[in-house]
Amino acid sequence: MSQLELLYKGKAKSVYLSENPDELVVIFRDDITAFDGGKKDVLSGKGSYNAAVSSFFFSYLEKNGIKTHFIKMIDENIMLVRRLEMIPLEVIARNRAAGSIVKKFPFEEGQILDPPVIVTDYKDDEHHDPSLNDDIILALGLLTQEEITYVKETTLKINRLLYDYFDELGLVFVDFKIEFGRLGDEILLGDEISMDSMRLWDKETGESLDKDVYRFEKGDVMSAYARVVEKMMFKK
Amino acid sequence: MSQLELLYKGKAKSVYLSENPDELVVIFRDDITAFDGGKKDVLSGKGSYNAAVSSFFFSYLEKNGIKTHFIKMIDENIMLVRRLEMIPLEVIARNRAAGSIVKKFPFEEGQILDPPVIVTDYKDDEHHDPSLNDDIILALGLLTQEEITYVKETTLKINRLLYDYFDELGLVFVDFKIEFGRLGDEILLGDEISMDSMRLWDKETGESLDKDVYRFEKGDVMSAYARVVEKMMFKK
Repeated sequence: MSQLELLYKGKAKSVYLSENPDELVVIFRDDITAFDGGKKDVLSGKGSYNAAVSSFFFSYLEKNGIKTHFIKMIDENIMLVRRLEMIPLEVIARNRAAGSIVKKFPFEEGQILDPPVIVTDYKDDEHHDPSLNDDIILALGLLTQEEITYVKETTLKINRLLYDYFDELGLVFVDFKIEFGRLGDEILLGDEISMDSMRLWDKETGESLDKDVYRFEKGDVMSAYARVVEKMMFKK
Repeated sequence: MSQLELLYKGKAKSVYLSENPDELVVIFRDDITAFDGGKKDVLSGKGSYNAAVSSFFFSYLEKNGIKTHFIKMIDENIMLVRRLEMIPLEVIARNRAAGSIVKKFPFEEGQILDPPVIVTDYKDDEHHDPSLNDDIILALGLLTQEEITYVKETTLKINRLLYDYFDELGLVFVDFKIEFGRLGDEILLGDEISMDSMRLWDKETGESLDKDVYRFEKGDVMSAYARVVEKMMFKK
């Protein structure tokens, strides 16, 4: 990949320009971080797991009518995607209360949220990704009212699809974070959908099978990720 | 007032039970605080100013079709109000960017926000009054969807009325914070509307005529409050 120009290096992915100006090459690295970069490690094979899970879900969502940036896998940890103009929002959907929402508000850990709660955070390291409501999204010019509606409806559809998918695997789809981008007049799902960007609990035992294993040192995060991937492969 | 039972002591007001169980007695004290109680003072006459301004605006809003808890003034700094079941939300409307929104997001101080931005904060000292969106308001069971719509529409009406009122006094109505409560099936405006709970700028000079004078030691806050009250009296 040495001849490609690096466009952006995130905490766990690097994005390169490709020969086609409409496409980008995303490398899922083995880096894992938590707490705004306060905790960092390199875990061999983690990039490939996240790439495999992301590519599976992008394809799964496309089959179910959701437009995504995914084109194809180039290698185990390398994905070719459509080049989007990313919208600097993290869109988080929650089916159960866990993590920051429990710290910030009087929810019980694990409390069912029905209908699911959607929260948006502004991606801005300088301001530490503050949550923002629709009025502020509009005032910052990040999305129009119609686009806000589209992003929320699409997030709820994705949530429903993934919730049902994981439910059949015996997993509770607690919450997840996605990002969207523009391609012409359209808004597509971008970024990734992996165990780095969701919470998954074993339905029977309540065990975490996601990045919380790493965040809170609940065990071996690679074994947890492997368990999810095995369940997914067994299902397919 | 010694025979009345104290129901609640806030940072600048004390609320007492009255002989009528449907009514409360609110005493506007001379205490002034800022930065979550980190800065505190007692300013003689400040309670009376805020009570006078609040009672004027409650009456003004009632005349314009907004239901409030206001019944009448008992003394200079003592107000009789309907007893509401308060909703633990601070509803903030902003016509210009100032204060926390400029710290948290890339707005310019003084930037016009049109349409006005409404933000809601959860009143919870333990959690330091976090901002929350409609989905979280619903999930916490604070308001129904219909009530959220009513509260926002009412806030925008109040904002329009006060914006126009201050505009005629040569003042920019930058932002304000209000609180609502339930009386049976109805939602009424409660709490106060004073220079403690709004930002007002002189249209010509840009000077603050509100609690920012105290927060940021921009001069004599009592003189600033007096200037607003004089302008209001002159207008009436």
